[in-house]
Amino acid sequence: MTNPPPVIGIVVMQPISYESYMIMKLKTVLAQKRSKYQNIEIVELSEYGKALVLDGLVQSTEVDEYIYHESLVHPAMITHPNPKKVLIVGGGEGATLREVLKHSTVQEAIMVDIDGDVVELCKKYLETLHAGAFENPRAKVIIADGKEYIEKTNEIFDVIILDLTDPYASEIAQELYTAKFYRKVYERLAEDGIMVTQAGSSFYYEEVYDRVLESVKEVFPIVKEYNVWVPSFGYACNFIIGSKKYNPEELTVQEVDRRLNERKVTTKFYSGRTHIALMNLPIYRKSKVR
Amino acid sequence: MTNPPPVIGIVVMQPISYESYMIMKLKTVLAQKRSKYQNIEIVELSEYGKALVLDGLVQSTEVDEYIYHESLVHPAMITHPNPKKVLIVGGGEGATLREVLKHSTVQEAIMVDIDGDVVELCKKYLETLHAGAFENPRAKVIIADGKEYIEKTNEIFDVIILDLTDPYASEIAQELYTAKFYRKVYERLAEDGIMVTQAGSSFYYEEVYDRVLESVKEVFPIVKEYNVWVPSFGYACNFIIGSKKYNPEELTVQEVDRRLNERKVTTKFYSGRTHIALMNLPIYRKSKVR
Amino acid sequence: MTNPPPVIGIVVMQPISYESYMIMKLKTVLAQKRSKYQNIEIVELSEYGKALVLDGLVQSTEVDEYIYHESLVHPAMITHPNPKKVLIVGGGEGATLREVLKHSTVQEAIMVDIDGDVVELCKKYLETLHAGAFENPRAKVIIADGKEYIEKTNEIFDVIILDLTDPYASEIAQELYTAKFYRKVYERLAEDGIMVTQAGSSFYYEEVYDRVLESVKEVFPIVKEYNVWVPSFGYACNFIIGSKKYNPEELTVQEVDRRLNERKVTTKFYSGRTHIALMNLPIYRKSKVR
Amino acid sequence: MTNPPPVIGIVVMQPISYESYMIMKLKTVLAQKRSKYQNIEIVELSEYGKALVLDGLVQSTEVDEYIYHESLVHPAMITHPNPKKVLIVGGGEGATLREVLKHSTVQEAIMVDIDGDVVELCKKYLETLHAGAFENPRAKVIIADGKEYIEKTNEIFDVIILDLTDPYASEIAQELYTAKFYRKVYERLAEDGIMVTQAGSSFYYEEVYDRVLESVKEVFPIVKEYNVWVPSFGYACNFIIGSKKYNPEELTVQEVDRRLNERKVTTKFYSGRTHIALMNLPIYRKSKVR
Repeated sequence: MTNPPPVIGIVVMQPISYESYMIMKLKTVLAQKRSKYQNIEIVELSEYGKALVLDGLVQSTEVDEYIYHESLVHPAMITHPNPKKVLIVGGGEGATLREVLKHSTVQEAIMVDIDGDVVELCKKYLETLHAGAFENPRAKVIIADGKEYIEKTNEIFDVIILDLTDPYASEIAQELYTAKFYRKVYERLAEDGIMVTQAGSSFYYEEVYDRVLESVKEVFPIVKEYNVWVPSFGYACNFIIGSKKYNPEELTVQEVDRRLNERKVTTKFYSGRTHIALMNLPIYRKSKVR
Repeated sequence: MTNPPPVIGIVVMQPISYESYMIMKLKTVLAQKRSKYQNIEIVELSEYGKALVLDGLVQSTEVDEYIYHESLVHPAMITHPNPKKVLIVGGGEGATLREVLKHSTVQEAIMVDIDGDVVELCKKYLETLHAGAFENPRAKVIIADGKEYIEKTNEIFDVIILDLTDPYASEIAQELYTAKFYRKVYERLAEDGIMVTQAGSSFYYEEVYDRVLESVKEVFPIVKEYNVWVPSFGYACNFIIGSKKYNPEELTVQEVDRRLNERKVTTKFYSGRTHIALMNLPIYRKSKVR
Repeated sequence: MTNPPPVIGIVVMQPISYESYMIMKLKTVLAQKRSKYQNIEIVELSEYGKALVLDGLVQSTEVDEYIYHESLVHPAMITHPNPKKVLIVGGGEGATLREVLKHSTVQEAIMVDIDGDVVELCKKYLETLHAGAFENPRAKVIIADGKEYIEKTNEIFDVIILDLTDPYASEIAQELYTAKFYRKVYERLAEDGIMVTQAGSSFYYEEVYDRVLESVKEVFPIVKEYNVWVPSFGYACNFIIGSKKYNPEELTVQEVDRRLNERKVTTKFYSGRTHIALMNLPIYRKSKVR
Repeated sequence: MTNPPPVIGIVVMQPISYESYMIMKLKTVLAQKRSKYQNIEIVELSEYGKALVLDGLVQSTEVDEYIYHESLVHPAMITHPNPKKVLIVGGGEGATLREVLKHSTVQEAIMVDIDGDVVELCKKYLETLHAGAFENPRAKVIIADGKEYIEKTNEIFDVIILDLTDPYASEIAQELYTAKFYRKVYERLAEDGIMVTQAGSSFYYEEVYDRVLESVKEVFPIVKEYNVWVPSFGYACNFIIGSKKYNPEELTVQEVDRRLNERKVTTKFYSGRTHIALMNLPIYRKSKVR
């Protein structure tokens, strides 16, 4: 490389896998808190802008969060022909909520995050991420354990979105990646309901990912996995849709674009063409070659 | 992250961009040479197996090279209905040659690499990469400056594949990313010929990438860009097709699979569905959000 | 190593030499400023407490700054039998000033630092370092170019202490490591005056260090070099004394302790025994073995 | 820092403490072996030459090993007026043996290392370290557990040198840092015998170090600790002498130099002056300031 300036000074050292790290230049630390559940840091990265970091792992950055959040939310939301009531578990940044609320069909979006400190800090420091979503009259934010919420609520949802820390990362999310939990999710979905979960990296943590995938398959009749590279994660992030009735693979470019247009959803990454790409891109797995 | 073993001992510290690095655990160094053009290292990485490293940048690893090489070779090769004569510039590992030779239509594949030391070391240490391609009677390997070769040869090719180090990396490849060079390539292509070049990262080096893209557009009537995440690079690698007649976007899943089948091409990553995904996946760019 | 917790999250990546780095876990960033001269960061490190970082290089930390500052100040101050008037060039943290003022013989200590932003930020965030020295009635702080100050002043000093960034680091200090500058220093010293300068690492930057050492030798009749490991620097820091009359090597343990006691100087690192150790410890040099 | 070339490519990432690392540029890997006890690597570092690395920790490098080995061996050897029979436990590189054999008084030096693979690899690749010591007729190398050897032997030694991996590092050495073991060592020493052990870093691992120091004090009437910076370790290495009769602090510069001369010992680091420095330099401890 011809004369890259050396990366010195303050950096974030992020584990990508058991045997690799990513080092990113940091501009400043905006806030830090040890909450009841995790280490929370709001930082500004040289290449990615402001970012939420939990237990040393980047969750979202201003520069590339749209790739993650649009890929998490819209395939499931668009696959459902008329999502009115949506539940988000996790998603403390408010960006998942922001994307959900873009769909004009949505009458109520409930977001349940266990860590009130994450929500407070994101509200204060990451305005470009929530973009006012927390104040939207259709939004309702509940600070509670998502697992307990799902077990106790009587509400029925059209779409449930699980926006959690990685299944192999901090312990707080691990029970939310089990068949037992997905069965509770299934029960809280309408008869044509659909759920989606982020699922970490199938490439670097294939065994953990396979357990999650099998768990979704145990519960839902229609299961679709897809993955998309998120630069600040250092890997392609996987997502798994579990659906009772609608199959995300059956949508055409035109139908996706028609629905986006009808619902007045504007995006930077997701579109009819992106939907087709995500539905067709191979899932990254090391076992393919070993 | 719950108890990741610390990454200590011997590692590769690879620049991803001007302000980030990737650190990968290394098992052993198999060979090292300072050639006339670059520092060559053949190493074994814990997570990726054997790998070729040039000037500190991973070029190919046993575990994920198929993603890069299949994505480089097959979209262009399949778009051409009957590629008989193919030129590869660069590609010292022999893996691009290996993929080209999979197409039963190919009668002659000429590979021109400037650095004989890279070819020698790859031949000796990276057998899984070339997989015997160098010995294939349809293959011809020439150690020469690709630019000079293209300027002097009278041969005409159906497909030309540029498998070079990144346009922002070592200086040896920089002249091979210019409109001036692409005009020479155009002249050496049949009237329905097609070329493809790898183009580094549009996300981390957007300006450099844009210059390359504009240069291809100056010369070719049909231009198609696509990108795919390569784990050991730490980013999605971009590719640009320049075509005189055939449009890679017009192929269907079925037609791609039919051609692969007809030509007896077997793959791990590329397929009709992958082709559609690559043609539709958005190009990663920071400027989208800034 | 049995189970060291992995160092992840926010860290400082500090160059030790042209080919090595030190990585230190960071707790938080307290302040950051790009001044006219350098990048200033006040951080809190996990193992070292609060620290001043200039252009990515740790200057002082709460945990080990006493080693550096006592080793810089006291050998020269104690070698002089009655230092009344002292000049400090650099030393923005105020810790060098703090050590100088411990000597009851001192009637006036003038500190000249080029960067008012460093002084302001240290005053505000690094109280344990200056420990009120800036408010001491015997102290006078001048924000000015040390070189210009020395050239223009008519004052005569007993001791002059050069507490600058490394000679091979940021450009702002480079002219203050030349024979030309040392001649000006010589002129501003009383006829039995003594000066001392920190001089970076003789081990990692031997050529640069040798030029500095030769420059002091060109000007002063008595020259004594010594070095001491400073943990947060990642190396042993060198110091060079230039003296007109008194030889630091001639002091006994007892005489050093007597003077410290007489002047009511209390220390954590420096003592009669430490003086003897510093005067006798070999200077680290790679050339010794090559 | 003005334009340091970025440290990229293959490096060694060495833990210095629980919260810091040292990164050193690597030229090549000469040999690697997973022995029964540890990961053994013989590498060549850009700044330090060839080096032995055990479990990711640098043990010795060509460039600075003399600092460590001379500081380990000579203070104890010189303190004894006539060391004839010496036992080394550990010290697989042969450099400790090399230093011991420099003393013309020595009639027999027995080296007991548990890991025959370390000895074999060092013999083959690190000639500058052992410098032929293994072939010296006064030397005897035994591959055995040092603890068991000491328990079973009937031999009596004038000096016993414990050259082990750090007490907080790999488990193999931990029992050799206990009072129980030191009592066995005591029994195997002549009535005017003396032992010395390396003891890792008192600065970064103060608690572990204190346990070792207390253990030596439990057993020996005369105990002397000293420390010296070893560049490639990233810290000052501590040593502890336990002596039955002779006090290393009572030697003068002249007496040390006289004995070195008499015994025909030539050195690069150690001398009468160095002895005085080591005996007087403060021990690095974080608790001093906390």
